[in-house]
Amino acid sequence: MNPGVQIDHTDRIGEIKVLLEAHDEEGLLRLLGTLHASDIGRALAGRAGLAGRAGLAGRAGLAGLDEEQAVEVFKRLSPELASEVLLEIDERLRKSLISSITSEELIEVVQELETDDATDIISELPVEDAKQVLEGIEEKDSIALQKLLVYPEDTAGGKMQAELVSVAESATVEEGIEEVRRKGREMENLSSVFVVDAGGRLTGVVQLNKLIIAEPRSRMKEIAEADPVKVTADLDQEEVAKIFQKYDLIALPVVDADGRLVGRITIDDVVDVIEEEIFEDFYKMAGLNLEERVLDAPARSIWMRLPWLLINLATAFLAASVVRVFQGTIEKLVILAVLMPIVAGMGGNAATQTITVVVRGLALGELSLNNARWFIIKEMLVGLANGLMTGVVATVAAYLLGANILVGLLLFLGMTANLVIAGLSGAFIPIILKWFKVDPAISATVFVTTCTDIGGFLSFLGLATLFMRAGIL
Amino acid sequence: MNPGVQIDHTDRIGEIKVLLEAHDEEGLLRLLGTLHASDIGRALAGRAGLAGRAGLAGRAGLAGLDEEQAVEVFKRLSPELASEVLLEIDERLRKSLISSITSEELIEVVQELETDDATDIISELPVEDAKQVLEGIEEKDSIALQKLLVYPEDTAGGKMQAELVSVAESATVEEGIEEVRRKGREMENLSSVFVVDAGGRLTGVVQLNKLIIAEPRSRMKEIAEADPVKVTADLDQEEVAKIFQKYDLIALPVVDADGRLVGRITIDDVVDVIEEEIFEDFYKMAGLNLEERVLDAPARSIWMRLPWLLINLATAFLAASVVRVFQGTIEKLVILAVLMPIVAGMGGNAATQTITVVVRGLALGELSLNNARWFIIKEMLVGLANGLMTGVVATVAAYLLGANILVGLLLFLGMTANLVIAGLSGAFIPIILKWFKVDPAISATVFVTTCTDIGGFLSFLGLATLFMRAGIL
Repeated sequence: MNPGVQIDHTDRIGEIKVLLEAHDEEGLLRLLGTLHASDIGRALAGRAGLAGRAGLAGRAGLAGLDEEQAVEVFKRLSPELASEVLLEIDERLRKSLISSITSEELIEVVQELETDDATDIISELPVEDAKQVLEGIEEKDSIALQKLLVYPEDTAGGKMQAELVSVAESATVEEGIEEVRRKGREMENLSSVFVVDAGGRLTGVVQLNKLIIAEPRSRMKEIAEADPVKVTADLDQEEVAKIFQKYDLIALPVVDADGRLVGRITIDDVVDVIEEEIFEDFYKMAGLNLEERVLDAPARSIWMRLPWLLINLATAFLAASVVRVFQGTIEKLVILAVLMPIVAGMGGNAATQTITVVVRGLALGELSLNNARWFIIKEMLVGLANGLMTGVVATVAAYLLGANILVGLLLFLGMTANLVIAGLSGAFIPIILKWFKVDPAISATVFVTTCTDIGGFLSFLGLATLFMRAGIL
Repeated sequence: MNPGVQIDHTDRIGEIKVLLEAHDEEGLLRLLGTLHASDIGRALAGRAGLAGRAGLAGRAGLAGLDEEQAVEVFKRLSPELASEVLLEIDERLRKSLISSITSEELIEVVQELETDDATDIISELPVEDAKQVLEGIEEKDSIALQKLLVYPEDTAGGKMQAELVSVAESATVEEGIEEVRRKGREMENLSSVFVVDAGGRLTGVVQLNKLIIAEPRSRMKEIAEADPVKVTADLDQEEVAKIFQKYDLIALPVVDADGRLVGRITIDDVVDVIEEEIFEDFYKMAGLNLEERVLDAPARSIWMRLPWLLINLATAFLAASVVRVFQGTIEKLVILAVLMPIVAGMGGNAATQTITVVVRGLALGELSLNNARWFIIKEMLVGLANGLMTGVVATVAAYLLGANILVGLLLFLGMTANLVIAGLSGAFIPIILKWFKVDPAISATVFVTTCTDIGGFLSFLGLATLFMRAGIL
């Protein structure tokens, strides 16, 4: 981290742009020296990700750098700063910046990175380039990276780094401190030392502050927390994040199938996972691909959203076919066509509330198959109560707007029925999907809104038809 | 943290229940000794939060503890474990458990907590009880807590703890290590030492591993990272979380208006904030109160969700009044009533996609007023393209289902128009709300879906009316 950083940075894109265009080499280097990698990354992405791609221009002061200018700035960064900037930008800009430097420069940049970040960058390179980098860096580092490259990106193995301090159980505290001196010089976020047995199996953890406090001649084994929380390398990143939160960890050791220590995950890498997983749930609910970002080109967004819209179109036709059954009823009383979207829409809104509560409850582990039955009944009760109350309001409103009192009664009955359907389907469907190990967020909304659309039309128009047959409407 | 913890805990509620009912005191204490606070918290909340409140029974094996049993278990915990369990449960259960112990016991429990957690618990107590606790604990702790109690819960001051190690600039590394020895014994997550000048103003930070490595007789000032990232106590917690993520921090010093060090925030407290803020956005989108949880009693959920449903009802009537204008058109051609929900529904789905992307973009800082114009145009393009494509599919489907080709054309035009409206309103409205400093998540969905409902009905039925007037339909 840049030590001179203050928290009150304003947007420096304009400043960089002016210096670049004035060819003020010295001023540019001075400015870059005062900025944090994340600010530089933002400046580089500013326009390269935006108008640079879409061909839309903004006012000079507000617009960012174009891709050519981004490359110009990137080339002037030290390998250390360049390596940090690469971690702050999106994959596409990263590819473009990497392709602008020589493979020797890239090797220098990769050597500045922690192993977990280096692995991420190398795995994005074309095979030939990746090979060249792995051959170019120090052999020790290359071997470490090749071991890490085996693990899928979204597992504990993919998130871990090889940089860690481990000490034998039998070593003294003095020797442990010596090991921290030897290895800890260049490490960020080193908060604990791992203790291993003769076979390399993890048996304990010592926090650095406890290590400092301990009697120098005591054994590591004596002062270690025995049987520490640990994970295997193949564990999914979402589970890893849950363990960090459950035990309030800042670092977590990773072991292989035999319990041998292979790496360490630090919390700063997990924070992004936690954020990503929550956004993923809600993206799925809206039928979005998590890969889609604000700055994506229009064509990319179009193709990513189209499949979901087509699925929704199919379910919309399904609901419309229900309306079609009651075409004759509507013909006799057109006000039904005016009011029926209210019944369906209110069901959809109530169902969205229920699904959102379910998604959060499942994510936080508050909702499980143990309490599912209770929750489903609760949601039906909530739907019934709110259906009765909003139904009364709707009926009065319809009456004031000139609708027949019997039509008002239909509206009341239809809304109440549909809000119960919303509560039932909004709670039951995600839970049953979870039971069958299908992702509850992605498929729930399609099924549930289909239920409330069909439920709304069926209850409102169906009751109207019955009323008509009975001769009271 | 309990050192014996493994990560493969299964649900132990049943086991606790059986031991409680068998009055197996010894077995119960043994079992509780092997469990982590978060598992005990979950067991206590299991049923007290559920059937215990709702009066619904489950099968004995699966059901959790009722509130009385939760109290029985809680009373048997050591002050240390009890203090950790209190942090794992919701406010209501916490109140009930706290009221089951004597004020002497509560004082013991509070003394086990870190100052930030103790502050949270004390601020929930009735004033008299809070006073009693503050008078009962050690004077030094009491003063520290009273200082922290001043800050609102959702600020840096509310999240910080008073436990930290600070050393004078002029002190030697040896003296710095001595200070860690003195104060760091009972501290969790101590990863760095703060360096202050003679006036108590923060001037630097030293990571513990750097402290261990340093030459014992060098001065703290020489080895410290100067001018470190810091925040003032009044900063909003959302901003604090952003700073942690931007600089990959695990601890952040908090200073007062004069730059004097007053506390420290650790990342484990920030992770919950990050999670909460994201859920808050999506809860607002669905018209939910963030306070609502899966385990809430039905009555609470009913009242919390009703206001939003009423607002939606009002907007649904607004949309219905548009349909009413075209009642005559529908009377002449009832198939319009069958197809019109498709047009409105597809607009709503496309708008939800856009709003979700906007909420994430604003949360991650990728979308700003700088690139807003570009984004709005992009979303309209995406709407246009997907409107044309889904419109074609819809037209063919309607034709195959027996609709007139002209009605199919209306469907095509209506859907295309409404998906452009969805892109425009879905992007423009949240951004303009942000501009006016209104929370973009909360109000966007109401406005936007009203736009797509009205837009859908207006374009589809309006065009149909024009076609009829022109005599082509």
